[in-house]
Amino acid sequence: MIYHHETIFTGKEAEKALNNYLLKSASRHSSTFILTDQNTHKHCLSILSSKFRLPEHSIILEIESGEVNKNLSTCIRLWKELAAHGADRHSLLMCLGGGMLCDIGGFVASAYQRGIDCVYIPTTLLSQVDASIGGKTGVNLDKLKNYVGFYSPPKSVFIISDFLKTLPDNEMLSGYAEVVKHALLSDDKYFHNLTKQFPNYEAVRFNENWADVVERSVKIKSNVVKSDPYEHGLRKVLNLGHTVGHAFESYSLENDAVPLLHGFSVAMGLIVELKLSVWLCRFPEMLSNEIIKYILAVFPYYRFQKEEIPKITGIMNFDKKNRDGKIRLTLLKKPGDLITNVICTQELIEKSLLEYLDLADEANDLKFQS
Amino acid sequence: MIYHHETIFTGKEAEKALNNYLLKSASRHSSTFILTDQNTHKHCLSILSSKFRLPEHSIILEIESGEVNKNLSTCIRLWKELAAHGADRHSLLMCLGGGMLCDIGGFVASAYQRGIDCVYIPTTLLSQVDASIGGKTGVNLDKLKNYVGFYSPPKSVFIISDFLKTLPDNEMLSGYAEVVKHALLSDDKYFHNLTKQFPNYEAVRFNENWADVVERSVKIKSNVVKSDPYEHGLRKVLNLGHTVGHAFESYSLENDAVPLLHGFSVAMGLIVELKLSVWLCRFPEMLSNEIIKYILAVFPYYRFQKEEIPKITGIMNFDKKNRDGKIRLTLLKKPGDLITNVICTQELIEKSLLEYLDLADEANDLKFQS
Repeated sequence: MIYHHETIFTGKEAEKALNNYLLKSASRHSSTFILTDQNTHKHCLSILSSKFRLPEHSIILEIESGEVNKNLSTCIRLWKELAAHGADRHSLLMCLGGGMLCDIGGFVASAYQRGIDCVYIPTTLLSQVDASIGGKTGVNLDKLKNYVGFYSPPKSVFIISDFLKTLPDNEMLSGYAEVVKHALLSDDKYFHNLTKQFPNYEAVRFNENWADVVERSVKIKSNVVKSDPYEHGLRKVLNLGHTVGHAFESYSLENDAVPLLHGFSVAMGLIVELKLSVWLCRFPEMLSNEIIKYILAVFPYYRFQKEEIPKITGIMNFDKKNRDGKIRLTLLKKPGDLITNVICTQELIEKSLLEYLDLADEANDLKFQS
Repeated sequence: MIYHHETIFTGKEAEKALNNYLLKSASRHSSTFILTDQNTHKHCLSILSSKFRLPEHSIILEIESGEVNKNLSTCIRLWKELAAHGADRHSLLMCLGGGMLCDIGGFVASAYQRGIDCVYIPTTLLSQVDASIGGKTGVNLDKLKNYVGFYSPPKSVFIISDFLKTLPDNEMLSGYAEVVKHALLSDDKYFHNLTKQFPNYEAVRFNENWADVVERSVKIKSNVVKSDPYEHGLRKVLNLGHTVGHAFESYSLENDAVPLLHGFSVAMGLIVELKLSVWLCRFPEMLSNEIIKYILAVFPYYRFQKEEIPKITGIMNFDKKNRDGKIRLTLLKKPGDLITNVICTQELIEKSLLEYLDLADEANDLKFQS
């Protein structure tokens, strides 16, 4: 299968492009469905319908918010609702929401009657810079993250900044973690520019103009995806921070009343994987300390007991990127220079988690930790 | 998305190709799963393992036979079994069974961790000449046939005649209906050759050498699929006999203790659609009568009450190939010359079903009607 790339529109171009798309859609699609969750139904749908002329008789579908609902039961409900509303092969599904909504909406559209047209209108910073780009769709199989899904890019992605104004602070900050990761995939200079523009978490919270940062991130990610859509090799660089990050996220989902947001897990994962990068890939230690200090200044620090470390490494053994039961990570040689499939012993990962715990004193306890 | 074509091996080449594939698989795949249903587990697995050297530690998965089990619950069970057995992105799923098994197995493989390798070893005549070719995977959504699925061809299809010896007579005959359809898609001459080789149902039952007929059908179908993998146009010619056939099949599933087999539904659908072809596409009436007579000599005739006609046309209104609520059929101008998307009124379809009922006296009541 050769990958068909989605067309991604950012900035002012995005509004124009969405208007054009809706205009053409009238003759192209037999019916239009808008998929929302509780949050985007409440906060984003009115923005969408006030700024754009939605097709008459559009049908609104709503799912419950939250990763825990990104499962096959929700898919089955949506497929049945589409069928009950007479959706046919020429229907359109518009996904209005964050990463969870685009992941499940993209999967539902790609499998309904073997595939109907789908577009994404990502509403969170996280989905605008990351989840909506790259064609991965999927849902969780019980606790196994994204175990069921498909590579199926939407026809188009319309990235519109207005929706970011509806986001709570912690969601903005969570998305910013992927921006930091993209900077580390790009180069030293862009990373240092970011630290100047956003020296601390308040700078992220109160920033009003995200267009340039979003566009830069989209470019970095989509260049990687284009060269390796099916993750045979290069695309694995995008996993930086995520092997450890996903383990934190899964652990928190099971143990915390309010689970750790994805971006916060990734930020903490970056810290741990920077430590491993110094040990295994000779990443410069001074630069690593500088980056770690920056991450601690911007993101909430995730606390857990030393005794829980085996549980967290245990989760890593189930990462679906593993092979032959070995833990493989994407690590950094220097900013912009990554090594994928670095095999790592359980012991070294435990050591890195211990060093992570030692950072507790340097960390800010951000009030909006979630 | 550009379609990646599966490699199809038939005849003697198929055994050699499967041997080669299994040899290479040892280093290519981290684990091998063989999907069977109750029937193929009992009758086909021993043939497979005696003729071929299966990977050590292959894991056998079994599902219940029957179209009614081609649903998302079965998929979820299979995905969980794959995960429980540690299947990763480098695992292989071999589908050993008929069309139902390949449809569901192909879907499960294409969505597990966003796609693992999959090969088909079709064991019925129907799946060897039809279901295993063309990359359509899918499951039913309650009573809605193939409403959830993907276009996702397996890596390879190995068509091995030995498995046909395990088939009951009615399954052989059911598969033969697609052979007749392919002849009508091809040309007059091939159709008349078939009528000489298989003048009646006993000739089908007692035939021992299927290799040439299977190969011819595979060629006819795969040529159509290659020119239009996603059914935007030309591929719809394959629907000949199926719009009415599916309606018979669905009707029977709801109303008969032993539901009509797929091929028998298609054979009866061909009769009705030949009538419509004469009226709407000027198909030569004499030839139509000759073909109908042949179909009645070979396949069991499906009886229903005149009063049930509105129920059957009602089902056609839900065919997922429709658009704008209009019934569209693929009809014949002459053998090898088809017209797709012929819009047909409810009245004309009712008239054709009445004429079908008038054929009852000419029909054989085959003993193995199922």
